[in-house]
Amino acid sequence: MIIVMQAHAEPKQIEAVVNRVEELGYKVHLSRGESRTIIGIIGADEHLIQQSSFEAMDGVEKTMRVMQPFRIASRDFTQQDSIVKVNGVEIGGKRVVVMAGPCSVESREMILETAHAVKEAGATILRGGAFKPRSSPYSFQGLGEEGLRYLAEAREQTGLPIVTEVMSPDEIEVVAEYADILQVGARNTQNYSLLRALGKQSKPVFLKRGMSSTIQELLMSAEYILSGGNMNVMVGERGIRTFETATRFTFDVNAIPVLKELTHLPVVADPSHGTGKWNLIPPIAKAAVAAGVDALMVEIHPNPAAAWSDGNQSLTFERFAKMMQDLRPVAEAVGRTI
Amino acid sequence: MIIVMQAHAEPKQIEAVVNRVEELGYKVHLSRGESRTIIGIIGADEHLIQQSSFEAMDGVEKTMRVMQPFRIASRDFTQQDSIVKVNGVEIGGKRVVVMAGPCSVESREMILETAHAVKEAGATILRGGAFKPRSSPYSFQGLGEEGLRYLAEAREQTGLPIVTEVMSPDEIEVVAEYADILQVGARNTQNYSLLRALGKQSKPVFLKRGMSSTIQELLMSAEYILSGGNMNVMVGERGIRTFETATRFTFDVNAIPVLKELTHLPVVADPSHGTGKWNLIPPIAKAAVAAGVDALMVEIHPNPAAAWSDGNQSLTFERFAKMMQDLRPVAEAVGRTI
Amino acid sequence: MIIVMQAHAEPKQIEAVVNRVEELGYKVHLSRGESRTIIGIIGADEHLIQQSSFEAMDGVEKTMRVMQPFRIASRDFTQQDSIVKVNGVEIGGKRVVVMAGPCSVESREMILETAHAVKEAGATILRGGAFKPRSSPYSFQGLGEEGLRYLAEAREQTGLPIVTEVMSPDEIEVVAEYADILQVGARNTQNYSLLRALGKQSKPVFLKRGMSSTIQELLMSAEYILSGGNMNVMVGERGIRTFETATRFTFDVNAIPVLKELTHLPVVADPSHGTGKWNLIPPIAKAAVAAGVDALMVEIHPNPAAAWSDGNQSLTFERFAKMMQDLRPVAEAVGRTI
Amino acid sequence: MIIVMQAHAEPKQIEAVVNRVEELGYKVHLSRGESRTIIGIIGADEHLIQQSSFEAMDGVEKTMRVMQPFRIASRDFTQQDSIVKVNGVEIGGKRVVVMAGPCSVESREMILETAHAVKEAGATILRGGAFKPRSSPYSFQGLGEEGLRYLAEAREQTGLPIVTEVMSPDEIEVVAEYADILQVGARNTQNYSLLRALGKQSKPVFLKRGMSSTIQELLMSAEYILSGGNMNVMVGERGIRTFETATRFTFDVNAIPVLKELTHLPVVADPSHGTGKWNLIPPIAKAAVAAGVDALMVEIHPNPAAAWSDGNQSLTFERFAKMMQDLRPVAEAVGRTI
Repeated sequence: MIIVMQAHAEPKQIEAVVNRVEELGYKVHLSRGESRTIIGIIGADEHLIQQSSFEAMDGVEKTMRVMQPFRIASRDFTQQDSIVKVNGVEIGGKRVVVMAGPCSVESREMILETAHAVKEAGATILRGGAFKPRSSPYSFQGLGEEGLRYLAEAREQTGLPIVTEVMSPDEIEVVAEYADILQVGARNTQNYSLLRALGKQSKPVFLKRGMSSTIQELLMSAEYILSGGNMNVMVGERGIRTFETATRFTFDVNAIPVLKELTHLPVVADPSHGTGKWNLIPPIAKAAVAAGVDALMVEIHPNPAAAWSDGNQSLTFERFAKMMQDLRPVAEAVGRTI
Repeated sequence: MIIVMQAHAEPKQIEAVVNRVEELGYKVHLSRGESRTIIGIIGADEHLIQQSSFEAMDGVEKTMRVMQPFRIASRDFTQQDSIVKVNGVEIGGKRVVVMAGPCSVESREMILETAHAVKEAGATILRGGAFKPRSSPYSFQGLGEEGLRYLAEAREQTGLPIVTEVMSPDEIEVVAEYADILQVGARNTQNYSLLRALGKQSKPVFLKRGMSSTIQELLMSAEYILSGGNMNVMVGERGIRTFETATRFTFDVNAIPVLKELTHLPVVADPSHGTGKWNLIPPIAKAAVAAGVDALMVEIHPNPAAAWSDGNQSLTFERFAKMMQDLRPVAEAVGRTI
Repeated sequence: MIIVMQAHAEPKQIEAVVNRVEELGYKVHLSRGESRTIIGIIGADEHLIQQSSFEAMDGVEKTMRVMQPFRIASRDFTQQDSIVKVNGVEIGGKRVVVMAGPCSVESREMILETAHAVKEAGATILRGGAFKPRSSPYSFQGLGEEGLRYLAEAREQTGLPIVTEVMSPDEIEVVAEYADILQVGARNTQNYSLLRALGKQSKPVFLKRGMSSTIQELLMSAEYILSGGNMNVMVGERGIRTFETATRFTFDVNAIPVLKELTHLPVVADPSHGTGKWNLIPPIAKAAVAAGVDALMVEIHPNPAAAWSDGNQSLTFERFAKMMQDLRPVAEAVGRTI
Repeated sequence: MIIVMQAHAEPKQIEAVVNRVEELGYKVHLSRGESRTIIGIIGADEHLIQQSSFEAMDGVEKTMRVMQPFRIASRDFTQQDSIVKVNGVEIGGKRVVVMAGPCSVESREMILETAHAVKEAGATILRGGAFKPRSSPYSFQGLGEEGLRYLAEAREQTGLPIVTEVMSPDEIEVVAEYADILQVGARNTQNYSLLRALGKQSKPVFLKRGMSSTIQELLMSAEYILSGGNMNVMVGERGIRTFETATRFTFDVNAIPVLKELTHLPVVADPSHGTGKWNLIPPIAKAAVAAGVDALMVEIHPNPAAAWSDGNQSLTFERFAKMMQDLRPVAEAVGRTI
């Protein structure tokens, strides 16, 4: 970490900072410029240093981290791409994995019908919400465990592994009993109680970026799970909050190559939430694949206009099947399969 | 709700929308313009309608809510300002209430010393974190129940009610045993499992706005608690995420009069998180009071440069006492006391 | 336009709104709900109505446009994609056009060398700045007309048409004398004096989206040029301002299909400014092509580390040639050539 | 400036950076850590260094400025608050100056009537737009020079100095002939041609922050005018673009104390544009004064519902007079007058 002292910082202020650094067990590298003194903290475990307490010291103007604040999630920890394996499906390898299904599991028939459509179109993981985070307490909140049972039945019939959301530490046990991948939604990206609990169990976790999380914060949240002992983590871009109102969120396509550079974890894109409009899903799915994503998560529904949630960002089965076909040459164009 | 059909929507598409509205038990008001048909849904309980499923119907261009999606939180529900009473302190009345204390409870001595400084300066509620949401798993995570016990001891010594954060449904019981107000932090504003659980208990709740929550979403989250049966809710502005990097967050002062217009719930401002810099706390606290806030929450610390968290946005006791003095004429200038 | 009256709007307030609408020559469609009255303004030229003055009338709660506020730029005006032709190069057709060159023209040799590299790699338009908008008055401000002459010489040698920025109405004449396409930069997207002047001349204009312009505002700015009589306009996404700091801007890939839906004008993507980092240009260029863009604008430099501006977001010639090769299969995958 | 090399930067890469720094005439301060080398550039004129070209050099990970990139605008240049004097009115002194008037000058009668209301309420500068930046080419674009003549007549009758917008370098001459203060609007904050031209004339300039300008960029734009020789510059906060849609813009109240810390220039607040709603103007005006602003700019109109522009964010004369009264005790509470 680098600490820049104010233009006219007093010698005793500089000394206080140096003493603090040394008390913490780090070596100091002092650089006195014409107008300012700069203090470098030298050591490999910079992520353990509390940046804000140095900023609070008298005479300090600003500080800058030299290294990323995450460790296990970083490329420095593992150069090679990590692969998360789920019932024979590999996420993070050459094949771009497609996870598809309804926003909410609405009934047994509906999820079974959808699961077959997912499989037929060539996707390999089934998504479906049983515990639903809804912005209104008056909206449908999901079928709960009943929904999980229908998902399990759909897996039995199709062989597709299941990904579904978990919203609270006390739900983990029941969700993990049925699901193959536990999903953390955008509103819980910094729900540290949940992340800590997910680090202590072994099912793979799909951690979505919060709508206002920086890429660094997303990886810090992944670090919570990783540092708890669970190495099966994938991270996902699903759109961020910006001033633009033509779309529900702004899909941050830049985040894909940035994440691939910073982390070895598989990177997933969700063009349904990233746009909020079904007709934008195919072009943005193609863009995500072209930018290097390892997996896609897409919302589909047998009858979007009758959906109990997110109807406007769900593809029909026909449109989904068409999109899967259109994605193939794009994947091949960047050296992948789908 | 108003549904705008596309320019060349077919009669059968219009009919389908009308049928859907009537199936849901609402009356339809149809308006055929030269180029477009507009469908109004008439009824008092608009908050029960699923907006996105109409947007997914063929021929629909866009929809607009006529009424706010929250009900109990709205000014229509109660015209008069709600007052939350905590051990004799009234939040939402003429007096602007100041809640102050450290980001984290670091030790028994530290919180006792701080509590006395809070009282001496004229503030009436003690804040202090025991369960801490930290962006890094390697940072201090709070003293937990031990911290709560120290807070309770500080209350015993000073008479100050306590506000402290709760991060997870399974922590509510222990936190509620000690605290007078349960705080929901910005990272949990849309943690619906937590909000639902807080609606089922009776302790007052201070709900902070998420860093990317709209004002409407904040009130929808309040609605979760209110609709669960707990009417003792206050909401707070603590800075939102924007492109500006000179401050940690952008304190949205507009939100104060907007909230006072939309809701009867008391409105709190947190200039510590809203700026991220201790020297900006006093001017922003004054601005918040001038804009009409009912309470302030401020971080103070006996020695900010040695704080285990948020040192850079904490006032020393001296600076806090000075700010309290400076706030008095501002409160009086807008017809309040402090 | 739809005007929603407040819950308890008085009859005379409703009457005043109705009278105003009728005074303006529009028909009114009144819809009285249980709790609110809604007033529809019926007429084809909604873009001529002043929305904010209705919002200022007593008893009005909010208003909503039914139609887009732009007319000539819209798909309703021309269903077919417009093609801008520049010295034999067609922008907006099947071929994805690549415009490349340095941020600033630094010398005669440099721009000639670059022009040959652009041509050799298969790109068809040469970019280069002569009048430069720089955030610091102490930075290099461009070679001015001297730079334009070098660009013209480069065109003579290679046959590549030239695109270069114009910053002020009084520069248009000299820039138009040399350039084939006049570029409006992101800081001037809402410089209406400049836009109006560009509408009165005939050279094609490439209008970039401002870093905080909505898609609608971008098209309104295009409407300034179009309504002045110049129909040769293309619009471009180059990244918007968000809270993310890992990249210089957030490239809004959603804007590509949204623009293709709303307008017939050719859509250009600038992955150099959209990311701010040279290593992110190739994946984002591929994403933009996959999402349906008509042209790309890319910064390249013989020696980026010695560039007088934007070095960090410029490709070397080798990396640019490699990217051109890699883009070909992506373009083909979405039914285009490059 | 500080340059952080990558973890495994090669010695020759480090050498190349060092050589470049020395070629530019600066001294180098090298700091070799365990994992990384850090290169400090020592010298007083850091604002002359091109940051991005160092970022483009091989082996460089990131760079950080130590000093602000502006010089004359900074507090280091002049410790004391600058005061801009306009016909006897001092902006930047103890008295908070209020500039008020209509968005657009609509007629002779209207501006004369408004000018008298401004004076009567105790405000000391008259605002009014003659050249108007409008997002639609179909909206009223201002009366032009005719409007300026009416403003001059209003000044003659009331003695109030005039502030009005200038949009283009070629308009400066005519606007400066009539106006006392030349205003640069938010859409032209980074219109460098205009800023440069304003630096070469002597009338005071009121430079508004762009809706997506950082505070640093605003001061860099001020630096354009200052470095041209015109020292009579004031800067203003008028709301920034964020995700919040309840208000037209988010008034960044944090910017007020941040600007007062960074610059000696007077700081103005515009609560009309900063909120977009007339009923929010009084609380936000109070907040701005409480936060330390030197002047306010407010839109007022004899009949806002009939205004040709910005009706919804204009106060009536009565509401303005009431606000002026209410502002007095707030100003006094922070040691100012109004």
